[in-house]
Amino acid sequence: MVMKVDLNSDMGEGFGPWRMGDDAALLDVITSANIACGFHAGDPDVMAETMRLAAKNGVGIGAHPGFADLKGFGRRRLNIGADELGNMIAYQLGAAEGVAKSVGAKIRHFKLHGALANMCAEDATLAKTCYSAALRVNPEIILMVLAETAQQAVVQELGANWAGEIFADRAYEDDATLVDRSKAGAVLHDADMAAERILDMLREDAIIAESGKRIPAKIDTICLHGDTPEAVEMARALRTKLSAAGVTLTQF
Amino acid sequence: MVMKVDLNSDMGEGFGPWRMGDDAALLDVITSANIACGFHAGDPDVMAETMRLAAKNGVGIGAHPGFADLKGFGRRRLNIGADELGNMIAYQLGAAEGVAKSVGAKIRHFKLHGALANMCAEDATLAKTCYSAALRVNPEIILMVLAETAQQAVVQELGANWAGEIFADRAYEDDATLVDRSKAGAVLHDADMAAERILDMLREDAIIAESGKRIPAKIDTICLHGDTPEAVEMARALRTKLSAAGVTLTQF
Amino acid sequence: MVMKVDLNSDMGEGFGPWRMGDDAALLDVITSANIACGFHAGDPDVMAETMRLAAKNGVGIGAHPGFADLKGFGRRRLNIGADELGNMIAYQLGAAEGVAKSVGAKIRHFKLHGALANMCAEDATLAKTCYSAALRVNPEIILMVLAETAQQAVVQELGANWAGEIFADRAYEDDATLVDRSKAGAVLHDADMAAERILDMLREDAIIAESGKRIPAKIDTICLHGDTPEAVEMARALRTKLSAAGVTLTQF
Amino acid sequence: MVMKVDLNSDMGEGFGPWRMGDDAALLDVITSANIACGFHAGDPDVMAETMRLAAKNGVGIGAHPGFADLKGFGRRRLNIGADELGNMIAYQLGAAEGVAKSVGAKIRHFKLHGALANMCAEDATLAKTCYSAALRVNPEIILMVLAETAQQAVVQELGANWAGEIFADRAYEDDATLVDRSKAGAVLHDADMAAERILDMLREDAIIAESGKRIPAKIDTICLHGDTPEAVEMARALRTKLSAAGVTLTQF
Repeated sequence: MVMKVDLNSDMGEGFGPWRMGDDAALLDVITSANIACGFHAGDPDVMAETMRLAAKNGVGIGAHPGFADLKGFGRRRLNIGADELGNMIAYQLGAAEGVAKSVGAKIRHFKLHGALANMCAEDATLAKTCYSAALRVNPEIILMVLAETAQQAVVQELGANWAGEIFADRAYEDDATLVDRSKAGAVLHDADMAAERILDMLREDAIIAESGKRIPAKIDTICLHGDTPEAVEMARALRTKLSAAGVTLTQF
Repeated sequence: MVMKVDLNSDMGEGFGPWRMGDDAALLDVITSANIACGFHAGDPDVMAETMRLAAKNGVGIGAHPGFADLKGFGRRRLNIGADELGNMIAYQLGAAEGVAKSVGAKIRHFKLHGALANMCAEDATLAKTCYSAALRVNPEIILMVLAETAQQAVVQELGANWAGEIFADRAYEDDATLVDRSKAGAVLHDADMAAERILDMLREDAIIAESGKRIPAKIDTICLHGDTPEAVEMARALRTKLSAAGVTLTQF
Repeated sequence: MVMKVDLNSDMGEGFGPWRMGDDAALLDVITSANIACGFHAGDPDVMAETMRLAAKNGVGIGAHPGFADLKGFGRRRLNIGADELGNMIAYQLGAAEGVAKSVGAKIRHFKLHGALANMCAEDATLAKTCYSAALRVNPEIILMVLAETAQQAVVQELGANWAGEIFADRAYEDDATLVDRSKAGAVLHDADMAAERILDMLREDAIIAESGKRIPAKIDTICLHGDTPEAVEMARALRTKLSAAGVTLTQF
Repeated sequence: MVMKVDLNSDMGEGFGPWRMGDDAALLDVITSANIACGFHAGDPDVMAETMRLAAKNGVGIGAHPGFADLKGFGRRRLNIGADELGNMIAYQLGAAEGVAKSVGAKIRHFKLHGALANMCAEDATLAKTCYSAALRVNPEIILMVLAETAQQAVVQELGANWAGEIFADRAYEDDATLVDRSKAGAVLHDADMAAERILDMLREDAIIAESGKRIPAKIDTICLHGDTPEAVEMARALRTKLSAAGVTLTQF
């Protein structure tokens, strides 16, 4: 049996004079980069610089749109109408494509950020608005979705190219949602344990919930974090362990 | 002899709860619309709505980027580096293309706004930065330039598609720059006079300065304003007079 | 029996190049102005200009803070923590006091805007966070509250100076909340009817619900709107009718 | 002879999810903190947190306003009219006072930031607009000025409370302006050398230019930087050396 998977991470999350995370280090670890589009983080310069570096490292480039909320980093829920949501997605994806073209790169995938992603994991109507808008801008784009959520149901219904994502460091409930961060064991901090769990999921083609329950899932990519030095260290360790176990790390 | 010319106007200059100008009325008069891209005015919703309306009216759609300065409406000069300028242009043009695709429309031309336009009319290096970035995003785009300024010199040097623009309501100096607004006669308020002058310029293929001097120029489009009811009225009158004089009003 | 009441309206709701409503006309009608503080609308220039005009007309000046959301005009609910909410209120009230001092005026009252106001009418904890922050900045300020809501309960608990507000043009439910705009009769468009209803409420010291139910209330001020020419017309008519009925229109 | 001087630093320069510099470390070193007011950096939360910490450490708190340009960190020159400039200052100083009151602290001084500071060091008219606005908001405030520049001339003309500032790590030209950063020796990186030079200036009550020229000056405060770990280290070393030389470090 040959196992292969993509490793993705959010990046390009600086703005103006401020930086966040060590993108250069992460780009040595991951195979797909989700790049903020200027609404919740990122600006045209950060986007251009990050895309240039990703392209140089052979890392796939994705647009990572979120709510227009720099102060809240796109993590606060906002109830906006369907038209407004679709326009906002089209604007951000288009902007990302513009910057990508200007640096000789290409937007290959699309992943929702923060509160918007959470809302679309719960609400298929919202998800459909977002993904439909993205597909009108780029019908070939690969939609990266939270596996086994409403996001996935929608991209399948739309017949779009898609990739299923799981988290390296989070425990799952029986319904494929994440265990709330406030609960013990919700977040894994040990790279060995995380790698072991990921390997089990890849072998079984299933999300393995905390309870032990198996939720069959198409797992194309694993989300890593890079916002702290520890996170980068864990990402690196995880990559090493997956490689050692014979998993090929490559773009979906 | 057959004369034809395009009529253009800036629009889509609302933001959130605020509107500016009567775009619907102007779209009955003009043949090309320069649509703000969200940095100095406009937001994804205003952009989508304006593009949809322009497409419905058969009006050509252009991206109209400016400095990121909502408060100053892009009218304040900002000294920014070449990389930052190019990234900002790529972002805005890409965003406009994204929104256009999402409403089934297409960005056909590109015109710089406000202080950025003025700076690029004076400084070929800046103009080259902007236009090169736009061409990397869309090599076929038609660059609308202030006729006989550094803008025009640059697009010719770049071998790009371009259209030369003059103003319907402004007097010209001998070097093809506009007479300063503070001087008497700098702005024409009479549609008859403006039409007469425009017709002379079209017949002679030249900008006619206040002094009477002829500056040979390729005149493809005439800029109209629509920010006040009087402006819309004058635009309409001008169109009527040009038509009556046998000028075909059509996209460049 | 002598009846007197204050008339208030939101204003200073322009931003940069955009204007909203006819503040100059409204300032001839009202006795208290709620001036936006730059987060959902308004900027330092609009604030200064509006305060100067209000002071000149003898109209009381209030700070009218809202969520930091120009695009959504502060009308979208945002879940933010208590500390962040208090800081945001302190910042906006302070800014309003700064601008007021710089034009020789004074902030006399305080009224929450839009979604934040609605949330605080329902949730006493939120309301307490906001009003406590305002009182730490200015212990003498008069807090204008939606009569008989959680807002009022909190200002009474805090022992603050306060004024109770009702709407001129909205129908009330039995629990003193507004009838939803989607229902028939929710909004009054006739100045005669509105004046009649207001007079009844003032005579009875009670909110009169659509059902006829009386909810005893301290009515200090009536909210008028000025965002459309019709709204200004209705505000003017209402003032005339209240005056004719012997009501003294004066600051609370 | 007793020598005493204040040590100041810019801080509170984070925004939303982003941080800049190690404010907590610097607050152990300095005696006055210049806190960004939300236009070029800072937000109500960062301001509140920084003021609370400064107050706890007995460090004097100042408002540090700049141009409304988060992306450019207030370092880009902007030509704005006098009214707009004054309103912007009043707004930011008021906001800082509001937040200070809400955390039980007090704004004691005022220092201009970035491009605005540089413009006001060169142009007395601009400086007068800014300082007059600040004084209308708070007549007692201490205006911190770049010693022997147009800033100082203006505060003296206005009869305001003021403090003269020099830089710990920058070489001076003969006219009291800073040696351009592009020239060799413009920036000192050695704490010993910086301390020696500062001690000479304090002993002689003069700015000592690179040429050796003495420019008599009232030196009340020394500007330290804290944006990098090296900067904090140098600030700490400088404080130690000044103390060892018998200089009392205390608020102006």
